Amino acid sequence: MIQKYSFGTPFETEAVVAPIPVSSGLPALGQIDTDHGFSFRLALSPQDIVYGLGEANRGIDKRGHLYISCCADDPIHTEDKHSLYGAHNFLLIDSGPDAEAVGLFFDYPGEMTFDIGYSHREQLCVCCKTADLYLYLITGKSASDIVHQFRQIIGPSYIPPKFAFGYGQSRWGYAAPEDFRTVAQQHRENHIPLDMIYMDIDYMEDFKDFTVNTKRFPDFASFVEEMKQQNIRLIPIVDAGVKIEPGYAVYEEGLAKGYFCKKEDGSEFEACVWPGMTHFPDFLRPEVREWFGNQYKCLLDAGIEGFWNDMNEPAIFFSAEGEADLRQWMADILAGKTSFHSFALSDRSKSLPNSPEDYQRFYHVVDSKRIRHDRVHNLYGCCMTRAASEAFARLCPDKRILMFSRASYIGMHRYGGIWMGDNMSWWSHLLLNLKMLPSLNMCGFLYIGADLGGFGCDTTEDLLLRWLALGVFTPLMRNHSAAGTREQEFYQFDHAEDFRHIISVRYRLIPYLYSEYLKAAKNDAMMFRPLAFAYPQDRIARKIEDQLLLGDEVMIAPVYTQNADGRPVYLPEEMLLVKFLPDGTLLQTPVPAGYLFIDVALNEVAFFIRRGRKIPVVDAAECVEALDMRTLCYIGDPKATYELIDE
Amino acid sequence: MIQKYSFGTPFETEAVVAPIPVSSGLPALGQIDTDHGFSFRLALSPQDIVYGLGEANRGIDKRGHLYISCCADDPIHTEDKHSLYGAHNFLLIDSGPDAEAVGLFFDYPGEMTFDIGYSHREQLCVCCKTADLYLYLITGKSASDIVHQFRQIIGPSYIPPKFAFGYGQSRWGYAAPEDFRTVAQQHRENHIPLDMIYMDIDYMEDFKDFTVNTKRFPDFASFVEEMKQQNIRLIPIVDAGVKIEPGYAVYEEGLAKGYFCKKEDGSEFEACVWPGMTHFPDFLRPEVREWFGNQYKCLLDAGIEGFWNDMNEPAIFFSAEGEADLRQWMADILAGKTSFHSFALSDRSKSLPNSPEDYQRFYHVVDSKRIRHDRVHNLYGCCMTRAASEAFARLCPDKRILMFSRASYIGMHRYGGIWMGDNMSWWSHLLLNLKMLPSLNMCGFLYIGADLGGFGCDTTEDLLLRWLALGVFTPLMRNHSAAGTREQEFYQFDHAEDFRHIISVRYRLIPYLYSEYLKAAKNDAMMFRPLAFAYPQDRIARKIEDQLLLGDEVMIAPVYTQNADGRPVYLPEEMLLVKFLPDGTLLQTPVPAGYLFIDVALNEVAFFIRRGRKIPVVDAAECVEALDMRTLCYIGDPKATYELIDE
Repeated sequence: MIQKYSFGTPFETEAVVAPIPVSSGLPALGQIDTDHGFSFRLALSPQDIVYGLGEANRGIDKRGHLYISCCADDPIHTEDKHSLYGAHNFLLIDSGPDAEAVGLFFDYPGEMTFDIGYSHREQLCVCCKTADLYLYLITGKSASDIVHQFRQIIGPSYIPPKFAFGYGQSRWGYAAPEDFRTVAQQHRENHIPLDMIYMDIDYMEDFKDFTVNTKRFPDFASFVEEMKQQNIRLIPIVDAGVKIEPGYAVYEEGLAKGYFCKKEDGSEFEACVWPGMTHFPDFLRPEVREWFGNQYKCLLDAGIEGFWNDMNEPAIFFSAEGEADLRQWMADILAGKTSFHSFALSDRSKSLPNSPEDYQRFYHVVDSKRIRHDRVHNLYGCCMTRAASEAFARLCPDKRILMFSRASYIGMHRYGGIWMGDNMSWWSHLLLNLKMLPSLNMCGFLYIGADLGGFGCDTTEDLLLRWLALGVFTPLMRNHSAAGTREQEFYQFDHAEDFRHIISVRYRLIPYLYSEYLKAAKNDAMMFRPLAFAYPQDRIARKIEDQLLLGDEVMIAPVYTQNADGRPVYLPEEMLLVKFLPDGTLLQTPVPAGYLFIDVALNEVAFFIRRGRKIPVVDAAECVEALDMRTLCYIGDPKATYELIDE
Repeated sequence: MIQKYSFGTPFETEAVVAPIPVSSGLPALGQIDTDHGFSFRLALSPQDIVYGLGEANRGIDKRGHLYISCCADDPIHTEDKHSLYGAHNFLLIDSGPDAEAVGLFFDYPGEMTFDIGYSHREQLCVCCKTADLYLYLITGKSASDIVHQFRQIIGPSYIPPKFAFGYGQSRWGYAAPEDFRTVAQQHRENHIPLDMIYMDIDYMEDFKDFTVNTKRFPDFASFVEEMKQQNIRLIPIVDAGVKIEPGYAVYEEGLAKGYFCKKEDGSEFEACVWPGMTHFPDFLRPEVREWFGNQYKCLLDAGIEGFWNDMNEPAIFFSAEGEADLRQWMADILAGKTSFHSFALSDRSKSLPNSPEDYQRFYHVVDSKRIRHDRVHNLYGCCMTRAASEAFARLCPDKRILMFSRASYIGMHRYGGIWMGDNMSWWSHLLLNLKMLPSLNMCGFLYIGADLGGFGCDTTEDLLLRWLALGVFTPLMRNHSAAGTREQEFYQFDHAEDFRHIISVRYRLIPYLYSEYLKAAKNDAMMFRPLAFAYPQDRIARKIEDQLLLGDEVMIAPVYTQNADGRPVYLPEEMLLVKFLPDGTLLQTPVPAGYLFIDVALNEVAFFIRRGRKIPVVDAAECVEALDMRTLCYIGDPKATYELIDE
């Protein structure tokens, strides 16, 4: 059952699409205070698990930390960080198999704090500054039931084209055709499957959206076609900020039409991002979304079939005001008016980008009313991606276009996927990648994946291989890294054959992965589930944070520590251990319930098939299109049935 | 067997105290190149484990990363960091139970790089800029044998007073007597054992070494005595830099005697640290060590019996030259001579502190010859602590004084312990704490421990409890945190009884811990060993990175993940699971070999006793002195023998 409560004057985020009448009174659950902003308090029992929050830090069970929904461009997301790139205000409280499960969705697009047993181990407190929001209270018989009910009211999840289930190679720094040709050639010559090469900001002219550097790409459409002849799609990035440059059409038109976010005095807000000073389109306005969405046409016309929307928290290196303040501070120091204490510079450098003050400096216009950005901050990236998605539906209604975003809010799952932002080449981020999968699924996001190998800092061959072995299972499987870090294409390492094998396993599994994706999308279900969802009575399974169920058939348990030969795995019941060995052998070993150590070499992918289940596999190929469905066969229990969807 | 090889003109670090003749020729193992600096290359087999590096990042098995010996004040030591606070150039290569084990000690006090399978999975490369060093090659029948041989040549490990095995409460920010009295009173009233309260920099007058703020502590000796009446020792901090302040005796005398490090032009080098601008004593000179060591007398005379030496990498917030460069950069920006690009401020703020340029700006004098600091950087903290230790031997020869340091080099293990630097309130740092224990033991450091609960950022009650449950076993057991973070004394949380219980378990185990410490010190052995050292034939045990052996009797397996009810543990053989329950019950459960899940509640300490072993325990008490050895009894196999040392 779903009840909707309204407090104050909620902002219509359009996260929920189902019409639900507003209940009167207060929810039967928790204590609500609207005297000083809004707060919702609920006592937690020791056995309660609190799921949710989508793309958020730390565990599958979110207890024990403070989370702040505030889309943030913070690439160094260590354990202590409160905010990541997305804002997904959904919680699910599972009190055990014999109790009712509870879902909570706080539909509020400003900053919101979730103290989940942080201040007090046995208390949940959700609060925000103004008591203007919708609260959805969902009750049901199980965790899965709550998710299903929630997913039904937030609308169907985005479905990408099938090629997007292939492998993609990316790096911030690919700039010239030769960079892309090298990637393509190395993969094809070494028979490493590849479907996509991503174009980071360097393909553009001076980082201007919807431009291509014509010196490097004099005939971009031909280059797109050249790659497509090899069954490789180029996937360009699009940033939120529009460069301030007289003569640049997007800038000129946006300015003339008044489509950019303005300050209190009515002038356009200026923020420095990659192109230098930019304006931010007011994506909250339908007419701006339509205008910005139409800009993608130039790239679609060149043959492009997929995009990633970036910098749309929006990230701000500094604002015009921030720079002015900084210059004044420098002048005061030089004049001796301000003393230069030990950490002054470091403090300044941390407060300059993405500052709360900047987010209070500009406004949106919604229904002809001005609203300050910080009050709707978490909708910005969502609305940018909606702009693109709605344009694709207009411009190429018969085609699925690949689209995923960095920032997001619940509701954006209808328009695209996400990648899990600028992670690091840390083993801990491999595990974090796994933990986010079910949490994001709960919130509707199905086309998801992390930068495999890690975006920031230097990867290692073994970290990348192990991460790819998890990436084999994630809908978005992309190797991406930052300029200035160790290059991490497979050919930068000693053992190309290991990469070939692991990525080939992905292609063998595509019929299964694609089918499970479509089922999750069509049935408002989760593709990845915590073990607790399927084994609620098993108290060890309930707490497992490093294994997941994939569909109804598979359990994954990736290796996420360095120098390991394998890992301990907990089996709630007897399962079939499956390994595709590099020599082509398929190992299927029944393994008993309980904890056991499984050997997984660096060049192996291991997973489990549950009792009485089977999954489809095909022969590997070098791109999705080349998969030969005539080679499809099943592994697992031959007596089992499996519904294969492929559309 | 130990062979010593000499290259170029090695600096005499005095890390090794045993006289070993220099062998001619080159080591039989590895490839050495001295044409461009020094490099040592060795092929690694897939099964080789590389131990060592003492206080270093990442695994017990160091393979797969790049480590740089360069004592560094970097509190945010994420997985990618190359340098921590210590520099311990010892490696141990274990090729399995049937092969000879190999030890390598590179006695070189400048920056040294260890590429342990990072660039290439199967290659070790150790290199430094100048080929002036001693290389010790140790061969032996086992990993333990190599460690024993190495420990014998580097001399006996420091032994602290027995009270140092008690629990200590610390926080940067305790400033006034009331702060200390509150800590004492809360512990005593709640019957939480406590032996030490640490005094961070705020006890001093303007952060000047060997001063006490006399406004707050008009009669410091009386205050020390007041605490001692409650069986609580105050343990003050001492920093490396001496404040530049005319009239301040330590500064005046050091300056008059020429004891501070000088620049190339002969003037004293100036570095900003906590007190503002300071000079660095030239601890490499015996007469400076004697002089600085004598300064501790004023605190010893006030009744102090223990110290911690900090900031002795040495940490530099900025140098006079660094500040001047920065001001020029600001002036150039303001004048429009330098453009202000996106990350300029952040880059500047990162390069200002602890800069390599600053470490090249000052000199030491050794045997009347000037040597630039960067060439001997890693000896600085070691020599500061040596200064203190040698002074204690002169000033109070019949008494053991507690001494531990932040920076260190091998050799310093004879003079004091270390704490593992400014860690963070991260679960990953709890595990890192565990992993450093055996690595540090290999290098002679026995009195060791991390800031329990985490120094930087905000802890949680459960993280602190779990971390304390590991700290129960580490010789240094201290709860320490940074100013500005969440307060983490036990009384800041809801469940005082949980803290009481866990810390009381520590006191029950002190006879065992102290005895094992003394054995390790006297026998040049390790107190904490990887499982591989005792079960070399067990291929799962060989790779375990989250369990350790403590002495010959105990295996520890702390819980290091949030929201867990327990953890899987690998038992190489049947053992006895021991739990002291909060209600006073002692649970002893035989558990079979293999992987199994053990329940460990947040308020419990669990560990294992090996087959045929027993350990001594006593009744808990509120301080070490109050432990009643008449209550001593043994748990484990009653037929076993145990040699108890207590001196």
